[in-house]
Amino acid sequence: MDNESLGAEAIAAHRARNGKIEIISKMQVLTAEQLALCYTPGVAYVSTAIKEDKEKVYEYTSKGNLVAIVSDGTRILGLGNIGPEAGLPVMEGKAVLFKKYGGVDAMPLCIATTDEKEIIKFLKEISPTFGAINLEDIESPKSLRIMRAVSSSLEIPIFHDDQQGTGVVVLAALINSLKLVQKNKDVKIIINGAGSAGYGIARMLSFAGFSNLYVFDSRGIIYEGRSTDMNEFKEELARMTNKEKAAGTFQEIVKGADVLIGISGKAEFSPGLIKSMAERPIVFALSNPTPEISYHEAKRAGAFIAATGRSDFPNQINNFLSFPGILRGLLDTRSKFLNMEMLYAAAIAITKSSGNIDAEHILPGVAEANSMARNTSNVASAVAGAAMKTGMARLSVDVREVKKRSAALIKRYARIEKNVIR
Amino acid sequence: MDNESLGAEAIAAHRARNGKIEIISKMQVLTAEQLALCYTPGVAYVSTAIKEDKEKVYEYTSKGNLVAIVSDGTRILGLGNIGPEAGLPVMEGKAVLFKKYGGVDAMPLCIATTDEKEIIKFLKEISPTFGAINLEDIESPKSLRIMRAVSSSLEIPIFHDDQQGTGVVVLAALINSLKLVQKNKDVKIIINGAGSAGYGIARMLSFAGFSNLYVFDSRGIIYEGRSTDMNEFKEELARMTNKEKAAGTFQEIVKGADVLIGISGKAEFSPGLIKSMAERPIVFALSNPTPEISYHEAKRAGAFIAATGRSDFPNQINNFLSFPGILRGLLDTRSKFLNMEMLYAAAIAITKSSGNIDAEHILPGVAEANSMARNTSNVASAVAGAAMKTGMARLSVDVREVKKRSAALIKRYARIEKNVIR
Repeated sequence: MDNESLGAEAIAAHRARNGKIEIISKMQVLTAEQLALCYTPGVAYVSTAIKEDKEKVYEYTSKGNLVAIVSDGTRILGLGNIGPEAGLPVMEGKAVLFKKYGGVDAMPLCIATTDEKEIIKFLKEISPTFGAINLEDIESPKSLRIMRAVSSSLEIPIFHDDQQGTGVVVLAALINSLKLVQKNKDVKIIINGAGSAGYGIARMLSFAGFSNLYVFDSRGIIYEGRSTDMNEFKEELARMTNKEKAAGTFQEIVKGADVLIGISGKAEFSPGLIKSMAERPIVFALSNPTPEISYHEAKRAGAFIAATGRSDFPNQINNFLSFPGILRGLLDTRSKFLNMEMLYAAAIAITKSSGNIDAEHILPGVAEANSMARNTSNVASAVAGAAMKTGMARLSVDVREVKKRSAALIKRYARIEKNVIR
Repeated sequence: MDNESLGAEAIAAHRARNGKIEIISKMQVLTAEQLALCYTPGVAYVSTAIKEDKEKVYEYTSKGNLVAIVSDGTRILGLGNIGPEAGLPVMEGKAVLFKKYGGVDAMPLCIATTDEKEIIKFLKEISPTFGAINLEDIESPKSLRIMRAVSSSLEIPIFHDDQQGTGVVVLAALINSLKLVQKNKDVKIIINGAGSAGYGIARMLSFAGFSNLYVFDSRGIIYEGRSTDMNEFKEELARMTNKEKAAGTFQEIVKGADVLIGISGKAEFSPGLIKSMAERPIVFALSNPTPEISYHEAKRAGAFIAATGRSDFPNQINNFLSFPGILRGLLDTRSKFLNMEMLYAAAIAITKSSGNIDAEHILPGVAEANSMARNTSNVASAVAGAAMKTGMARLSVDVREVKKRSAALIKRYARIEKNVIR
């Protein structure tokens, strides 16, 4: 399908349904008796029980399966600051994926403020209603500052897909790729882009034990002591990467590298750049919709493994593989915080869900429903396990039960999707 | 069912389902092609189209059918200030009723602030995502001040059920009752209670042309010049009612009255009080769960028409009759404001949906699905008509189409309820 007809068809599909989500009941209200249980007078007993034991809100309301997808519309996809209304179709799409791939109920909340302090207040205000928050498509470094500000003060976990979801999937893709090229954790890795995703990837790789890391932003390489265009997150990156405080150009540093990851949304990787890398190079060109180098061009230039964010080429690096399972695991353990251990466990679970990998299949297939369901269930139970191990879980659960429940929820929704939705 | 077993059964019903609402897709995502329309890359065209013409958000997203039910948990049912978490079961119940009786998607948002200014800010912040807001169970007069503050500044309409929904249904009940007792608009009416509901009833009746009105709060009768315990809303009531600035006791003023409406949540109406009224008295004892006087006691004391808020006696005065249809009408016209003309039109539509009235059937039956669907459709089209007539509608529609669409949405959900929900 060409771009023009895809656009026309997408608009027609949205117009025909007036958007993509609806809110239905989980309780039948066909009789006066059922009504008395669902609403007054019966509901008063439920409210009173929660008042007496607040934790019961997880059992008696939808909170325990409900995620808010919050965006201020400042960085929607590759479209930039297009405002909260224009961000809604994306957040609704994400809500659909949360339900389909994780059995998670997700509510888009595109809000009419771009002020950091107001957003932080907003997140606290909605926290009684939701079991977790997914921060989405907010410009960087504001999004990172918001995450830092609320992570320690909210009673519910907050997940930043652009940062953490991307970090998890890239780590999984890298671990599997390194198996194929038979290299170790001392590989030299270049990350081009220091926004939310670049920061998330560097942090995730660093936590996983990769220490030979270099990060570039639009001003060049990041190093301790750089004076221009720094912020607290770039300072953190400077401490975490580039041990020798190298100040070379992009071309100089990429030369001889094993892994090149592009996530800046802007740069181009020339075939010559790929050719200058070490043998059996790994190239993840993740900018969307236009990758830094196309899959085939990267392969032609000698990439042993190439991956992009696109669904029309092999090795799609897609956050679908991380966010449904991570949120499923967070909700099922009523976790209060999402830490690096839990994210790392998610990445490892993805590598284990990948089946027989080869240079064109480094990750679980996102197109097959069964593969996705298995992956989500594995990620959910891994996150739940790590949450309990690190003291983040408010509820102790059997990780095998998390896996089963996750599969059951996805299967249940698949029936609804097939029978009810058109 | 006694209270104890009702409570146990209500809790069991909520626990078994972990709450009452879920969020599903309106778009199937079974193939890669469908995924490309629902999410990236197709969704980018939809977002871009909204960015170029913001009004398209009503067509391409769920906003046009989506209502936020916002509460701060300070006045939940008759339970008082029990907090946002404990308020959630009530708001979820309301969301179920919105969908069932109006085809409206409603999202509970119980928030962690009770600060008036913060709530006002919150309502503005969520306005891009929703087509309307339903303010619910917020203590008075804060709720009234919030309504006044946001009504003129939001781009979407805000509905205050405690105030406006109650006002509409009471007006409808009164108009039908007066037909039965063959009295006119000059009847003497006493309203006991000057919170959100008392204010809403007095305002609605006054707008409808009832001028012989008296309102009491816990300090006694409200009159112009009263110095104790007044606020801007009681000042408004003072100007609107009690023309002769009477300062008598409750007993003195009720004596000889035609209509007595209780909505204070606290008072009791003695049989002697009813007996002191004019001939063929009308008594609406609306406090919940315990009315000011029971239905049968009021009848025994001589009430020609008695009504309560309870479903287990005749003449239940229930907001179900107003809120689904009002919101349906607001959404279908993309109205920016809900004015008194639209509320009045809703009340008249309810009187017309009531069929053959008698002293035990002054309103449409809320127990029968067909009666409820017909009532909602009539209210929706009446509100839509008044919205267009008074310049509140952003979209011009055929009121017969609103009626048809409303009936179709309710019928569609009835199929889902029967086939999917357990």
